[in-house]
Amino acid sequence: MAGSSFGTIFTVTSWGESHGKAIGVVIDGCPAGLALSEEILQPYLDRRKPGTSAFTTKRKESDTVEILSGVFEGKTTGTPISLLVRNEDQRSKDYSEIASYYRPGHADYTYDQKYGFRDYRGGGRSSARETIARVAAGAVACEALKELGVSVQAYVKQIGPVVVPEGADDWAFAKSSPLCMPDQKSAEDAEAYLHQVIAEEDSVGGVVECVITGVKPGVGAPTFAKLDAELAKAVMSINAVKAVEIGDGVRVAEAKGSENNDAFVAEGKTRKATNHAGGILGGISDGDPIVVRATFKPTPSIAKEQQTINRDGEEISVQVKGRHDPIVVTRAVVVVEAMAAITLVDQMLMGMGAKLENVKKIWGAPEA
Amino acid sequence: MAGSSFGTIFTVTSWGESHGKAIGVVIDGCPAGLALSEEILQPYLDRRKPGTSAFTTKRKESDTVEILSGVFEGKTTGTPISLLVRNEDQRSKDYSEIASYYRPGHADYTYDQKYGFRDYRGGGRSSARETIARVAAGAVACEALKELGVSVQAYVKQIGPVVVPEGADDWAFAKSSPLCMPDQKSAEDAEAYLHQVIAEEDSVGGVVECVITGVKPGVGAPTFAKLDAELAKAVMSINAVKAVEIGDGVRVAEAKGSENNDAFVAEGKTRKATNHAGGILGGISDGDPIVVRATFKPTPSIAKEQQTINRDGEEISVQVKGRHDPIVVTRAVVVVEAMAAITLVDQMLMGMGAKLENVKKIWGAPEA
Amino acid sequence: MAGSSFGTIFTVTSWGESHGKAIGVVIDGCPAGLALSEEILQPYLDRRKPGTSAFTTKRKESDTVEILSGVFEGKTTGTPISLLVRNEDQRSKDYSEIASYYRPGHADYTYDQKYGFRDYRGGGRSSARETIARVAAGAVACEALKELGVSVQAYVKQIGPVVVPEGADDWAFAKSSPLCMPDQKSAEDAEAYLHQVIAEEDSVGGVVECVITGVKPGVGAPTFAKLDAELAKAVMSINAVKAVEIGDGVRVAEAKGSENNDAFVAEGKTRKATNHAGGILGGISDGDPIVVRATFKPTPSIAKEQQTINRDGEEISVQVKGRHDPIVVTRAVVVVEAMAAITLVDQMLMGMGAKLENVKKIWGAPEA
Amino acid sequence: MAGSSFGTIFTVTSWGESHGKAIGVVIDGCPAGLALSEEILQPYLDRRKPGTSAFTTKRKESDTVEILSGVFEGKTTGTPISLLVRNEDQRSKDYSEIASYYRPGHADYTYDQKYGFRDYRGGGRSSARETIARVAAGAVACEALKELGVSVQAYVKQIGPVVVPEGADDWAFAKSSPLCMPDQKSAEDAEAYLHQVIAEEDSVGGVVECVITGVKPGVGAPTFAKLDAELAKAVMSINAVKAVEIGDGVRVAEAKGSENNDAFVAEGKTRKATNHAGGILGGISDGDPIVVRATFKPTPSIAKEQQTINRDGEEISVQVKGRHDPIVVTRAVVVVEAMAAITLVDQMLMGMGAKLENVKKIWGAPEA
Repeated sequence: MAGSSFGTIFTVTSWGESHGKAIGVVIDGCPAGLALSEEILQPYLDRRKPGTSAFTTKRKESDTVEILSGVFEGKTTGTPISLLVRNEDQRSKDYSEIASYYRPGHADYTYDQKYGFRDYRGGGRSSARETIARVAAGAVACEALKELGVSVQAYVKQIGPVVVPEGADDWAFAKSSPLCMPDQKSAEDAEAYLHQVIAEEDSVGGVVECVITGVKPGVGAPTFAKLDAELAKAVMSINAVKAVEIGDGVRVAEAKGSENNDAFVAEGKTRKATNHAGGILGGISDGDPIVVRATFKPTPSIAKEQQTINRDGEEISVQVKGRHDPIVVTRAVVVVEAMAAITLVDQMLMGMGAKLENVKKIWGAPEA
Repeated sequence: MAGSSFGTIFTVTSWGESHGKAIGVVIDGCPAGLALSEEILQPYLDRRKPGTSAFTTKRKESDTVEILSGVFEGKTTGTPISLLVRNEDQRSKDYSEIASYYRPGHADYTYDQKYGFRDYRGGGRSSARETIARVAAGAVACEALKELGVSVQAYVKQIGPVVVPEGADDWAFAKSSPLCMPDQKSAEDAEAYLHQVIAEEDSVGGVVECVITGVKPGVGAPTFAKLDAELAKAVMSINAVKAVEIGDGVRVAEAKGSENNDAFVAEGKTRKATNHAGGILGGISDGDPIVVRATFKPTPSIAKEQQTINRDGEEISVQVKGRHDPIVVTRAVVVVEAMAAITLVDQMLMGMGAKLENVKKIWGAPEA
Repeated sequence: MAGSSFGTIFTVTSWGESHGKAIGVVIDGCPAGLALSEEILQPYLDRRKPGTSAFTTKRKESDTVEILSGVFEGKTTGTPISLLVRNEDQRSKDYSEIASYYRPGHADYTYDQKYGFRDYRGGGRSSARETIARVAAGAVACEALKELGVSVQAYVKQIGPVVVPEGADDWAFAKSSPLCMPDQKSAEDAEAYLHQVIAEEDSVGGVVECVITGVKPGVGAPTFAKLDAELAKAVMSINAVKAVEIGDGVRVAEAKGSENNDAFVAEGKTRKATNHAGGILGGISDGDPIVVRATFKPTPSIAKEQQTINRDGEEISVQVKGRHDPIVVTRAVVVVEAMAAITLVDQMLMGMGAKLENVKKIWGAPEA
Repeated sequence: MAGSSFGTIFTVTSWGESHGKAIGVVIDGCPAGLALSEEILQPYLDRRKPGTSAFTTKRKESDTVEILSGVFEGKTTGTPISLLVRNEDQRSKDYSEIASYYRPGHADYTYDQKYGFRDYRGGGRSSARETIARVAAGAVACEALKELGVSVQAYVKQIGPVVVPEGADDWAFAKSSPLCMPDQKSAEDAEAYLHQVIAEEDSVGGVVECVITGVKPGVGAPTFAKLDAELAKAVMSINAVKAVEIGDGVRVAEAKGSENNDAFVAEGKTRKATNHAGGILGGISDGDPIVVRATFKPTPSIAKEQQTINRDGEEISVQVKGRHDPIVVTRAVVVVEAMAAITLVDQMLMGMGAKLENVKKIWGAPEA
């Protein structure tokens, strides 16, 4: 399957460029009978919308989603759901300069190498606006997961040197504050740090953590289609992600088996005494919260002067102008949730027939 | 596609259990005309073979690979290559105990939840022996890459607290020493540390880094099928991997854009002045070395006493006996190379027609 | 991959319902650098447009295609091409009756069984309007094939009892006449027959034959992905198709090997003395014209009284009203071409790396 | 996915050449808990075995199947099932002649064009022995279908000019006689005809019809993944098939809507008064028997002299020697059943989550 689709049964196909007419997504394979409307979808998109704080681009977009197919009388029909968001603020500025050289940290050079040329307006297809498609599809996935008792929630874990302490859980604060951190002190520190970064005409990286609760044990697969492998692909496919971790992630390099192994316990709220594993064992969900972490690089577009080459291969010095975010993590929170939710729904649909007895529940002959 | 296959054009299908008759793999879509024989494949398998040092399981297996199809007169025919490795040392010990409870850190519990029961002998399908299939297929991929001027090389970057210093490059030492570290001092420290871990009847985690050189710019895709996303899935699908990083990985959280952006430079040995990006920009190779890192958890099987539950959900105390490695990273080096190579070959085959002019080179009408 | 997508590298994703806001298609994986515009696409869509003769539905639709993404400065960029056609003539008639029962020969009953309910307005997703998506994507495929010297041409071979004689080749007439038959006498007979069918408030079946010329030998694959197997799926997936034939098709049941085998001949305009095989041997193109035939059932919507059941399972008598075609074959000609072209482009892209020497042409290291 | 695999959840991967070491198949995604053993599988393979009558090749093969993985304590584990059949009668004859030219009606020429060279021994990968893999996998699928109340049964409908009359149903006779026809008179006529064909050193085509009963309504999908489209691909992918029909097939070209539409009737043994549709409406099963027909070309290998070219492109005259069947249809009966069964199981697994209420049955949170 070509690279703009994700998922096997619940399949998401993303299209659109930053400065084209629209961004859109087609979701095929969504189970029939799920309540869906533009009112249900819009709040998800509003969470990634630009222009909502001092730390995001000033581009003005209402990002209003339109449902073009697949929903009838307020419910999904099981056929493809086509969602469309028109681009509104495609400033008619002169792009000839950006067309002529390769921005450091961007995909300009590699697109030219792969395709021979590129739509250079605002990054074209490699723009962060592509994540609209992911968030819109993720909204549908999240709504489906709610029906199954599953909740998907991400937050900003780190911005530059500021790390949210373990156990911080002020979720109400995280939702209301622009930096999406569940800890007021961390948010204040990060905010101060960001003002300094902005003053330097620079940008900085960060970490988003996503926690998925309510997943029954048994979702995922051994071998190549491990649930963590699918999540790793999903999350690494988000622009600017450079690392994906499950559970304790990179910390397990120094852990001993006796520390890292989670003891199983008698049936209760959790299945294990601890959750170093992040809710996945052998590629299959174990019933405990699934924990995925993504590290994002600093926004590559910075006003500070940088060295690069032009299309003729000559070294030049550039300052990237435009409307850019000094960090990507805050707007990425809902994107990480989206990719996690899409992955999970698809894996649940893929695994419905893992046991013959489950196949009989759906397709078996009626009892005589 | 069911979860035991990987890849779209170059498709690898893995099968077999630890204590079944054999482990095998079918490689479909390998280009015709590649020199291949059992002699070419065997050295790859010998690198992951158990029993080669004090730090690996004592299980005795020759792991002799047999080519059953797809090769004729010493060359691949383009049709499926079936490779088989017989299991020899399936000790006829009593597995009734292990069948009755769930080993912490293992997939026993989740397999039972997904499938209703499991082949409990030696971990069945979730055994590390499954990586034989990956290494055998990876060998074919590596041979194909050599023909394209691409080299794939991994090494052990970290064992517990011992980290190989940046810039260490004693590759000859890495190849000859059992710990696969390109730095003699680190290897000695790690060895000392491991003897202590073994004495404690414990195990420890580590890191493998893989560097791929010689890849032309233009391999990969935007959106969901980014080259880094495909690599993340490939590597995270290896048993015990809990984190995948590209280039600077988790370190970019604290980096600034002005530090992390790699300046493009005039054509030379490399395309960029630095390589924080790890050779991939916007999901597409940029011509510089591709750097992927995997963090492995400590081997979950330890002799030390642990708490768990049995199949009836009762809490019990266990000591996992058997022939286990105190670390997985040394034998994982060739597995990481294999998964990286498989991914790369598949992405190269997928992207051959990205430009119309390339399609014409293969399928165009002959010039009049 | 969910069922609304077709193809692996050149992937077509269709969406939209008869009486929804629009019908659309996303084409991913089209090679970059192909000239494309709405002016190039529209003539393909005009060929399937309703209301063009006495033998097609009276529904009024301009079927104007809009390119939303994937084209920049008149050329495809290699990223997803999103095409949209707004529905204009969604008559606000009362559908409550049609909602209550199952039309014979239609998908009403089976949609309800699969999904629990359906968008009943004008057939919803199972409407012939879905073929707009196929024709729009097929137009892109046909344009790509032209660049490779390949032409795809279908025509009406049979309407009811009227069969176009072997060897008829008045293509100019076929293009200008409403029945798309390359033989004036057959067209007159068919026209007379159709007037009689219409008078009876009935409908009738027919056959479309598609001939693809200029395909180099070597396209396709052995085993499951035979070129004929892929074409069979593609063509059988068109609404109302009940049989797919390659070359001599059903006639080979009575043929002897000595008659049916095509002798190979020395290089010339064709590769074989005859073409009973229809241009495919062992699943792979042999360089001669590829011949595919589809038999279409009579339009199931007829004004004549029929017996059926309502949603409560009670037997009732109905007359299906609305704007229906007495035959589907004439409008299906361009749809068959579209599906054949999409299949062919995808198979050509899939097979570019069948020989190692071809892979080296694209990805090999430059000669020293 | 490369071309030697079929299916998305229930995935079958075929490998092996006629004169290689073995033929095999890997079945991934089979639901866990299905009773399976070599004793259960062998009878399916015995039905396609050569050497059982005057009308099949004299090659001597026991075709003994070995289960290498995926079955534990007599039941499928849900992990890949690897099946192997060793080639025994690979006559060490001189193949240098066949290597030098292209047999008419065979894939020799097209393999050379696609891959640059070929394993010419006994047809290599394009040999009818490849169907061993299909039959072995089909056996697993048939066993799974039995558990769901579904039966798959094919028979020979036509051999050359001899057509089994409509309504013939002597299934006991069909099973016991070498020509697999459910009508004694037809079998006698066909036998006489075949003796004449053999005397002429020629071969002849035929038709196999497959009837699948017990499939609940709702299996399949609209658009590209119609159940009939998937069946068409599956059946057309069998060597020598030139036409696939569903229900009335090619006969619908002359039918009127009033004749061809099947009236729905009140719940009973069938859902429709007639079954011209062949059990599929709009790509989805309607609960009535699914009827698929395949037309096979005459065996291309005939002893009669034929014209062809050698690898240098020179025209030559040849007589194809070896052990060949004068017809393929009798041994193809179980192959058609296999491909139909594999398709059906895969589509059933793909469609388990079509309704949200079904997803809840498997993955929903337990009721409070």
